[in-house]
Amino acid sequence: MLFKVEMTVRVPPGFDPQEFERLKAKEKAFSQDLQRQGIWRHIWRVAGLYANVSIFDVRDNSHLHDLLMALPLYPFMDITVAPLCRHPSAIHEDDR
Amino acid sequence: MLFKVEMTVRVPPGFDPQEFERLKAKEKAFSQDLQRQGIWRHIWRVAGLYANVSIFDVRDNSHLHDLLMALPLYPFMDITVAPLCRHPSAIHEDDR
Amino acid sequence: MLFKVEMTVRVPPGFDPQEFERLKAKEKAFSQDLQRQGIWRHIWRVAGLYANVSIFDVRDNSHLHDLLMALPLYPFMDITVAPLCRHPSAIHEDDR
Amino acid sequence: MLFKVEMTVRVPPGFDPQEFERLKAKEKAFSQDLQRQGIWRHIWRVAGLYANVSIFDVRDNSHLHDLLMALPLYPFMDITVAPLCRHPSAIHEDDR
Amino acid sequence: MLFKVEMTVRVPPGFDPQEFERLKAKEKAFSQDLQRQGIWRHIWRVAGLYANVSIFDVRDNSHLHDLLMALPLYPFMDITVAPLCRHPSAIHEDDR
Amino acid sequence: MLFKVEMTVRVPPGFDPQEFERLKAKEKAFSQDLQRQGIWRHIWRVAGLYANVSIFDVRDNSHLHDLLMALPLYPFMDITVAPLCRHPSAIHEDDR
Amino acid sequence: MLFKVEMTVRVPPGFDPQEFERLKAKEKAFSQDLQRQGIWRHIWRVAGLYANVSIFDVRDNSHLHDLLMALPLYPFMDITVAPLCRHPSAIHEDDR
Amino acid sequence: MLFKVEMTVRVPPGFDPQEFERLKAKEKAFSQDLQRQGIWRHIWRVAGLYANVSIFDVRDNSHLHDLLMALPLYPFMDITVAPLCRHPSAIHEDDR
Amino acid sequence: MLFKVEMTVRVPPGFDPQEFERLKAKEKAFSQDLQRQGIWRHIWRVAGLYANVSIFDVRDNSHLHDLLMALPLYPFMDITVAPLCRHPSAIHEDDR
Amino acid sequence: MLFKVEMTVRVPPGFDPQEFERLKAKEKAFSQDLQRQGIWRHIWRVAGLYANVSIFDVRDNSHLHDLLMALPLYPFMDITVAPLCRHPSAIHEDDR
Repeated sequence: MLFKVEMTVRVPPGFDPQEFERLKAKEKAFSQDLQRQGIWRHIWRVAGLYANVSIFDVRDNSHLHDLLMALPLYPFMDITVAPLCRHPSAIHEDDR
Repeated sequence: MLFKVEMTVRVPPGFDPQEFERLKAKEKAFSQDLQRQGIWRHIWRVAGLYANVSIFDVRDNSHLHDLLMALPLYPFMDITVAPLCRHPSAIHEDDR
Repeated sequence: MLFKVEMTVRVPPGFDPQEFERLKAKEKAFSQDLQRQGIWRHIWRVAGLYANVSIFDVRDNSHLHDLLMALPLYPFMDITVAPLCRHPSAIHEDDR
Repeated sequence: MLFKVEMTVRVPPGFDPQEFERLKAKEKAFSQDLQRQGIWRHIWRVAGLYANVSIFDVRDNSHLHDLLMALPLYPFMDITVAPLCRHPSAIHEDDR
Repeated sequence: MLFKVEMTVRVPPGFDPQEFERLKAKEKAFSQDLQRQGIWRHIWRVAGLYANVSIFDVRDNSHLHDLLMALPLYPFMDITVAPLCRHPSAIHEDDR
Repeated sequence: MLFKVEMTVRVPPGFDPQEFERLKAKEKAFSQDLQRQGIWRHIWRVAGLYANVSIFDVRDNSHLHDLLMALPLYPFMDITVAPLCRHPSAIHEDDR
Repeated sequence: MLFKVEMTVRVPPGFDPQEFERLKAKEKAFSQDLQRQGIWRHIWRVAGLYANVSIFDVRDNSHLHDLLMALPLYPFMDITVAPLCRHPSAIHEDDR
Repeated sequence: MLFKVEMTVRVPPGFDPQEFERLKAKEKAFSQDLQRQGIWRHIWRVAGLYANVSIFDVRDNSHLHDLLMALPLYPFMDITVAPLCRHPSAIHEDDR
Repeated sequence: MLFKVEMTVRVPPGFDPQEFERLKAKEKAFSQDLQRQGIWRHIWRVAGLYANVSIFDVRDNSHLHDLLMALPLYPFMDITVAPLCRHPSAIHEDDR
Repeated sequence: MLFKVEMTVRVPPGFDPQEFERLKAKEKAFSQDLQRQGIWRHIWRVAGLYANVSIFDVRDNSHLHDLLMALPLYPFMDITVAPLCRHPSAIHEDDR
């Protein structure tokens, strides 16, 4: 089941840069592990912003929730979620 | 070059249903032609809304503009556009 | 899988009242059929507004989408959708 | 009398994590006590957000106010309240 | 039980002025009847706007809903509702 | 002359609780003094929020301004002001 | 007593241009009469918009309301009202 | 050339009150000097808010910019600017 | 003196297409005449939208106002205006 | 390929002024270098605000992203990006 997730990262002023780099490295490893499993299917940077547009392919709402809450940068993120489904004009039976 | 395009369709009250079905059929053919060319790379329905989330892969801004203005349902759409680029955490060199 | 759906009905000025009553009767029958099946689990009126808060229990995003698009009053509705999941503080294993 | 209450929790950056865990445990106990009394009738997590959708069944507006002001996490919450009532299409005389 | 209700009236362009005057007269009679019963406790005009701020004293949410849906000008109104209760600084035990 | 004033109190995180209690006590005394004079005619709590809806009866705009600026909790408040006048449907010549 | 009033005019598509010119002429005469009386103290055009910023000097809220409701173009206007008073930094005792 | 400028002052919590009083005194002197020169033509307090509505009469956009950036309280202000011009209904050739 | 002007065109549903083409041709001629005079210095299409971003170089606010009010498509436009001035980092003394 | 970029700078209260001046000097040098290369084609100050309107001429979305992320003041900026293309009414083949 697909969801579009948009994440914007806001670093609070004065946050320790080394600690933030450590969290970013963890976030990257976490994201790449989910990408390799085919769960975090797409991730694009929004040009000019510290933000991404992602497509998740999960079992259900709870699966999505557990993954997002486990993001190392979650406390610094504004997140919006939109449930997606097959579009009747898609030429792919299963556009993931 | 990738862009996220979100389209919401609003049919004005009283619009002729047959004419609208005719435009929808044209829209579908137009979209599927671009999908087959690899330009309209993804199209998903937003669950519960007459709206889609799409990913376009175009030559440049003008190419995107010309395609969107040519959509048969364009006069009924609210559209937002976000330029995308490769995310540093993506495991794909080229996530299209 | 649970979703909160909020629907606000807007009747365009000048719409034929008899036709609207006919659509409302169809909407009610459609809703009650889904309630009896345990799919449209809750429906509450928002006090003072022509609007409802509903809880749907569906198989997946597509199931929700197909049900909402089939609502007889769909063309007159503003709809928002929020995917829900079990809350860790809930005393029910399965709060539906 | 039913109310929909939506709560979003925002932890200020730098807040002591242990103190926050202590408040969360108190919040959980407080919520579960009200759930057992049939006052906090439903609580769902919004997928991907540190937020919930809840249904309260209270004596009156003051009763609702006193309960919400007593939430241990109240100082960290954004709250919206909507008074609900029976929907004419509900198949239940009393959908709580 | 008290509620603040704010109503803004929007007359669609081209609406028959005589029919509108007839509805306004019915609205006034309806409002004054509720005022005499002590249900519609206050009604003030917002200076410069076709809008009012009102205080209703009703039995419960459903009572409020039924009254507002019965307003002759309801189809032309934008309405917001806020449940009120006694303020701890009020010098009146019962400020209605 | 009547004004609706809506006040929402926001306590900055980390503000000294004892100092805040001291300000609240001053605010209550200040409000009750104005209520006794018939200037702060109504004050209601908005259910679930640290906010109030108030009706002031003042000589003019400056009088209102001076009173609000003198509120002990003013630095913590978001305030909106709406000038009110007699509603043509009011049954009271002078609804204060 | 001073108020800032901002008015934006929106002509519904298809409105009879001659009738609109007639209303504009009445509006101008009405405005100039109030300007000559010193009630409508200032009126400025907002560059690029069919909108004005005005300063009214009225007896009280009701006086303002009655004047605005009598504007020939009132049915086509979006209006916002802000009560003003003397600024402590003004060099004029009475800046009208 | 006239501009409407609206300024809202927000003092960050914990800012040194003496330093703020010192800045306010400088702001007042700065404003009064410009008022005497006929540049800051009007300044009104918005009733109930720490905000003003002002009319500036400047040579051009840059002149306005330089004046606003020089305000001693500028770092604490939210500012909106609207370019004004003569209204065709004004009875004054030059309403400053 | 420079201004950024953003224009979004909205064609009302059912507007006569031939009349609209006629207005568009007049708009183009009007715009190109001002471009040739060096007044309408830049005009760019916003990709995907029936909207433009323009830079005007005018004598003053009134000059800008008169030009925008004379646009043949003005009745179909939403317009925002921002006064611009030289940026201290610009390498051009006069970036027009 | 052209983009409009709007940047608003917000300095957090209490930020070290000397460090900020150092960052501003770096920002200016960075901007001027890109201006000399013809990449940052225009930069205008928005009158009255600590904000600019800029036009970038870049190879593609990624090029724009890399430049904006490298701005020394990026952590203090709110940024919006709009992809631009040639307007059909432009008299220049290539309005940069």
